[in-house]
Amino acid sequence: MMTKADVTDMIYEKKRAGGITWAQIAEMAGLQEVFVTSACLGMNSLPRESADKVATGLGLPQEAAVVLAEYPKKMFEMAVPTDPCIYRLYEIVGVYGETLKELIQEKGGDGIMSAIDFDMTVEKIPNEKGDRIEVKMSGKFLPYKSW
Amino acid sequence: MMTKADVTDMIYEKKRAGGITWAQIAEMAGLQEVFVTSACLGMNSLPRESADKVATGLGLPQEAAVVLAEYPKKMFEMAVPTDPCIYRLYEIVGVYGETLKELIQEKGGDGIMSAIDFDMTVEKIPNEKGDRIEVKMSGKFLPYKSW
Amino acid sequence: MMTKADVTDMIYEKKRAGGITWAQIAEMAGLQEVFVTSACLGMNSLPRESADKVATGLGLPQEAAVVLAEYPKKMFEMAVPTDPCIYRLYEIVGVYGETLKELIQEKGGDGIMSAIDFDMTVEKIPNEKGDRIEVKMSGKFLPYKSW
Amino acid sequence: MMTKADVTDMIYEKKRAGGITWAQIAEMAGLQEVFVTSACLGMNSLPRESADKVATGLGLPQEAAVVLAEYPKKMFEMAVPTDPCIYRLYEIVGVYGETLKELIQEKGGDGIMSAIDFDMTVEKIPNEKGDRIEVKMSGKFLPYKSW
Amino acid sequence: MMTKADVTDMIYEKKRAGGITWAQIAEMAGLQEVFVTSACLGMNSLPRESADKVATGLGLPQEAAVVLAEYPKKMFEMAVPTDPCIYRLYEIVGVYGETLKELIQEKGGDGIMSAIDFDMTVEKIPNEKGDRIEVKMSGKFLPYKSW
Amino acid sequence: MMTKADVTDMIYEKKRAGGITWAQIAEMAGLQEVFVTSACLGMNSLPRESADKVATGLGLPQEAAVVLAEYPKKMFEMAVPTDPCIYRLYEIVGVYGETLKELIQEKGGDGIMSAIDFDMTVEKIPNEKGDRIEVKMSGKFLPYKSW
Amino acid sequence: MMTKADVTDMIYEKKRAGGITWAQIAEMAGLQEVFVTSACLGMNSLPRESADKVATGLGLPQEAAVVLAEYPKKMFEMAVPTDPCIYRLYEIVGVYGETLKELIQEKGGDGIMSAIDFDMTVEKIPNEKGDRIEVKMSGKFLPYKSW
Amino acid sequence: MMTKADVTDMIYEKKRAGGITWAQIAEMAGLQEVFVTSACLGMNSLPRESADKVATGLGLPQEAAVVLAEYPKKMFEMAVPTDPCIYRLYEIVGVYGETLKELIQEKGGDGIMSAIDFDMTVEKIPNEKGDRIEVKMSGKFLPYKSW
Amino acid sequence: MMTKADVTDMIYEKKRAGGITWAQIAEMAGLQEVFVTSACLGMNSLPRESADKVATGLGLPQEAAVVLAEYPKKMFEMAVPTDPCIYRLYEIVGVYGETLKELIQEKGGDGIMSAIDFDMTVEKIPNEKGDRIEVKMSGKFLPYKSW
Amino acid sequence: MMTKADVTDMIYEKKRAGGITWAQIAEMAGLQEVFVTSACLGMNSLPRESADKVATGLGLPQEAAVVLAEYPKKMFEMAVPTDPCIYRLYEIVGVYGETLKELIQEKGGDGIMSAIDFDMTVEKIPNEKGDRIEVKMSGKFLPYKSW
Repeated sequence: MMTKADVTDMIYEKKRAGGITWAQIAEMAGLQEVFVTSACLGMNSLPRESADKVATGLGLPQEAAVVLAEYPKKMFEMAVPTDPCIYRLYEIVGVYGETLKELIQEKGGDGIMSAIDFDMTVEKIPNEKGDRIEVKMSGKFLPYKSW
Repeated sequence: MMTKADVTDMIYEKKRAGGITWAQIAEMAGLQEVFVTSACLGMNSLPRESADKVATGLGLPQEAAVVLAEYPKKMFEMAVPTDPCIYRLYEIVGVYGETLKELIQEKGGDGIMSAIDFDMTVEKIPNEKGDRIEVKMSGKFLPYKSW
Repeated sequence: MMTKADVTDMIYEKKRAGGITWAQIAEMAGLQEVFVTSACLGMNSLPRESADKVATGLGLPQEAAVVLAEYPKKMFEMAVPTDPCIYRLYEIVGVYGETLKELIQEKGGDGIMSAIDFDMTVEKIPNEKGDRIEVKMSGKFLPYKSW
Repeated sequence: MMTKADVTDMIYEKKRAGGITWAQIAEMAGLQEVFVTSACLGMNSLPRESADKVATGLGLPQEAAVVLAEYPKKMFEMAVPTDPCIYRLYEIVGVYGETLKELIQEKGGDGIMSAIDFDMTVEKIPNEKGDRIEVKMSGKFLPYKSW
Repeated sequence: MMTKADVTDMIYEKKRAGGITWAQIAEMAGLQEVFVTSACLGMNSLPRESADKVATGLGLPQEAAVVLAEYPKKMFEMAVPTDPCIYRLYEIVGVYGETLKELIQEKGGDGIMSAIDFDMTVEKIPNEKGDRIEVKMSGKFLPYKSW
Repeated sequence: MMTKADVTDMIYEKKRAGGITWAQIAEMAGLQEVFVTSACLGMNSLPRESADKVATGLGLPQEAAVVLAEYPKKMFEMAVPTDPCIYRLYEIVGVYGETLKELIQEKGGDGIMSAIDFDMTVEKIPNEKGDRIEVKMSGKFLPYKSW
Repeated sequence: MMTKADVTDMIYEKKRAGGITWAQIAEMAGLQEVFVTSACLGMNSLPRESADKVATGLGLPQEAAVVLAEYPKKMFEMAVPTDPCIYRLYEIVGVYGETLKELIQEKGGDGIMSAIDFDMTVEKIPNEKGDRIEVKMSGKFLPYKSW
Repeated sequence: MMTKADVTDMIYEKKRAGGITWAQIAEMAGLQEVFVTSACLGMNSLPRESADKVATGLGLPQEAAVVLAEYPKKMFEMAVPTDPCIYRLYEIVGVYGETLKELIQEKGGDGIMSAIDFDMTVEKIPNEKGDRIEVKMSGKFLPYKSW
Repeated sequence: MMTKADVTDMIYEKKRAGGITWAQIAEMAGLQEVFVTSACLGMNSLPRESADKVATGLGLPQEAAVVLAEYPKKMFEMAVPTDPCIYRLYEIVGVYGETLKELIQEKGGDGIMSAIDFDMTVEKIPNEKGDRIEVKMSGKFLPYKSW
Repeated sequence: MMTKADVTDMIYEKKRAGGITWAQIAEMAGLQEVFVTSACLGMNSLPRESADKVATGLGLPQEAAVVLAEYPKKMFEMAVPTDPCIYRLYEIVGVYGETLKELIQEKGGDGIMSAIDFDMTVEKIPNEKGDRIEVKMSGKFLPYKSW
């Protein structure tokens, strides 16, 4: 039975063989880069229509589109990630997590930023002193209710 | 010997008693909200001058300014944070960590986004379907070098 | 500086001395039992008005009302709880967690039940073969969005 | 030797191929949805008769019915679940676990809610402000005895 | 506020000063040795009447009786116990746990031995080849139900 | 190379196919139920003679008897067991571990109950209020020596 | 209530003030160095008579002798020890543990070396190429029994 | 590519088939029992000459000798070992680790016993009250240097 | 799909068969020893040109060069390494980590030594009292910025 | 009883009050910076003579010199360090640990670099593209012996 991990492997093979970028795959899907990449890595479900376009665009078997549209079990190691590029993100949450809580709740009251009704972009911005990576996140504010 | 944790407690007391916001403290310091809050929580060092202004503005003892300017030992629990507001940030790194790595490295080559040469803002954006929280991060791109 | 843990201790002392129940405290607050108990244990914030009523009703100092209304840092041990009464709840999540995910997503599409826009009741129901405990949870369905 | 995991895989394949829902499988078994789903996921044993009906209804080999009726070894990762849909359940136990203990024991005396003599339902309830998920649990109250 | 840990300390002091045994304390309480010892160590609640007798018998303050009768939060380190005397019990569960499951379920069907409706004795039995410790446990058989 | 895990699988297959009980296998071996079951699960070594009888009785290859008689590496997960039937045993050690230590040492002096020179039985005892499981353990008392 | 940790502290103070060695304390006790040191560190119980001699010899209060003779709760961190001198011992168990099991069981049959009926010595042996530390352990062989 | 684990399996097979002891294999190698056993289990490297003799003596392929002489990656689970025979060794380090540190440093100054320039023997010693296992370790004393 | 682990295995096979050293492979690549070894072990990416030279020099398939040039996911066990040669490095970080932080920040202000803009060498230095290993690391100093 | 942690606190207070650097303290001791800093942080023992000079130079009580010269129990958290400055060192061991093992053993045979007979320096080196931190370690090569 074909799994999301199988489809991720197929996509990596197509990328290695054809020099295809995530940006190109996102264009095939007609959706944004972060979302499509995360779906190809098995962490989100593509709408069926977009899944079909990606499967066709990359030359994957039809079942791959079905799999890309299935609801994922989002499993990640609940531990410290070792890859330096991912670790730095984790470190930012460690160093600034309480700060963000203080400021989100000062601005919105007791509540949280949703990670479900959520989107994100990432860009490289040229800069004389060294290029910068910019990550923007937007999540709905969800207030705790009293009952 | 006065510690950073002692100073954080003093600031919380001033905030409870006087209804002072982090935004007001940031203004006293003449620096941005995220940075000043994180320094007041003991996770960054304020420039001495800003530390003096904060201590004066809040009516803290002089030693508190010295402490706010000392280099912190950034200790956080390397585990899963339980507060829902902070956990959602952690979950975002878990779900989107590999995606960000793929895209950062597709855009910039083998390398990382620095968590040191780094800044961040957080805003609440009014929205008809429910207000949103926007977090923007900017970190220098650091390429791995071959040697 | 008075903490939420201090206030919880004061409430336990009042309960031991006066034989007061959580149900009575919930009545003072004018809100439901689960919510008020969780706020008294430091895991939710009471609206200021309810906090005042609880403080007055129990004879707590005025600062206790301020503290009950502050936004909590919801910290729990992210580990297996040992008390048998709490462990059984944890076991239910372990045994039925994937089942609930399958059914929630079959009924609502890719998404989750919110733990923020959420309420819960607990009752003891008399039963000939042995009384039963009934727990009812209701959380808003939050669909993942494609973007 | 066919395992419960093998049977779960077979059922998932039938579901993907035939668009069959858990509700339909529960109907085949003549038992409730949560219970049947959990048994198909290997966390409970179906009565032999129901197991036969499910195997026949889905077109599984005869041994699959034997396996569905065997007593499971209920293994789950005793750790924090990462899937957001399951994590929220875990978070609820973390935030409200002590509250439930206080209230169960206030209502019934020193004791627990059984996770063995136990049943549960899950429904999606339409709601103007956004649909809600309702989970109801019922477990026998088991008092600690003095001896 | 006097805690169960405080009362345990008081009892240890009385035992050290007066050479009192657990058997004698159980006799004061009018209940069995294992149960009374576990209650004195804070892991069970004594009926109020027995608690009064123990407090009087040992010369403890009146509040200690109240505390001994309160419902405990049964906290133990969910880890491997290091004391060799306790570790051996843990090792027995590790080595024989699956065996006991196989035999309990072969004898009673899919179900468990209750740890709530449960009692236990421990005796030293003289033996020529070396005395033996005998531990007897008795717990109600709780069958899983189908629903 | 045939392992103890391979032999356990063979035995489970024979049990599934022939409806054979652990009690019947113990009878083949001429030894007690707990011991033989634990040896079949790879946690003890059968005397070669008993191993031959079990292999013959169940129709296993000759090498299986050699393997059943080999000294096992007793590996169990040093963590909290999740199966409710096994977890309850673990919980008993957690709740009553220190109690047993107190009583074993009060009765025998500083020392432990051996888990090596050890035997155990498990029975189901009919009871009007619900059948009970009785587990009896007997281990040699080993005193610490001074030297 | 004086604890074993308190007594250990007292002994360390006497050692710092008077330059007393463990060898001298062992001589006071009339027992061997390893055993007496481990008892002074709270990991074994001294016979009352030896405890009295040590308390007198070091000028400790009388209650310290009672405490030294009490049965210890042997608690050690079940984790990797960091002190290099202790870590090397741990490493030896890691590297040679299975080897020792193979050889102990080849020589004695299925069984173990007791850690209870056990003694140990440690000596520094002069050597031209660098002095050596020699540790000798002797534990009773305990065979597993068949039953 | 043949690994050390493959060679260990080959040796176990030869031992099972031929009833060969570790003592006999050590004799083939012309080195001591503990060292040769640990090398056969993949935790040390045999000198090439000894590796050739073992391979020849046991009838292993030539590549096995190459592998036995390669430098191992000494991997062991950095956790508590469950096999009772190995656990007891771990327990000894836990109970006596600080004692050994105290005595090694009292005898030799600030330093450690090497686990690299190290050897060990294990013997079974007949004894009327029950045979004993004797383990002797000898490691070079390495003083910390000041610089 | 060929992975970095596959390529590492191929290289180890070539090394075993041909007695090739890491120094020789570094020479093929035209880069330094530490960097090339780490890339062959899958922890860094070789420039494509160097990757081609290594693949040709060792007689690996062409795809191996592609793989050596791909950006690695740097995964290491975030735990204590057991191999004594690697553990000692870990121990040095444990013992001297805070010392290095103190000195780096005394010399450079609040900041860190980069592990990205980083290089390292390792040499064996002959010495009469025993040869020494010298490791030299050089990383860019990255100051925290105030913002 | 004054502990090493107490002395570290005293030294930090002197440093805050007097603006004294580690370099100046090392000069007082007449030893190198890394070693003296690590001893002041409680991770090494100063020779008594140097300890006296440091105590005198900083105006510490006489007992502080005794404590600085005592053999430390080197305790560090065996986990991932969170401070970014220390984490980067840990990351280097994770990324390059196996590489260093390969190269140390290629150069010296099966063995390790000692962390005991060991010294280290750290310098800031001016550099046009950004200053660099250089860390140099030198440890004796210790070969495994065959026996």
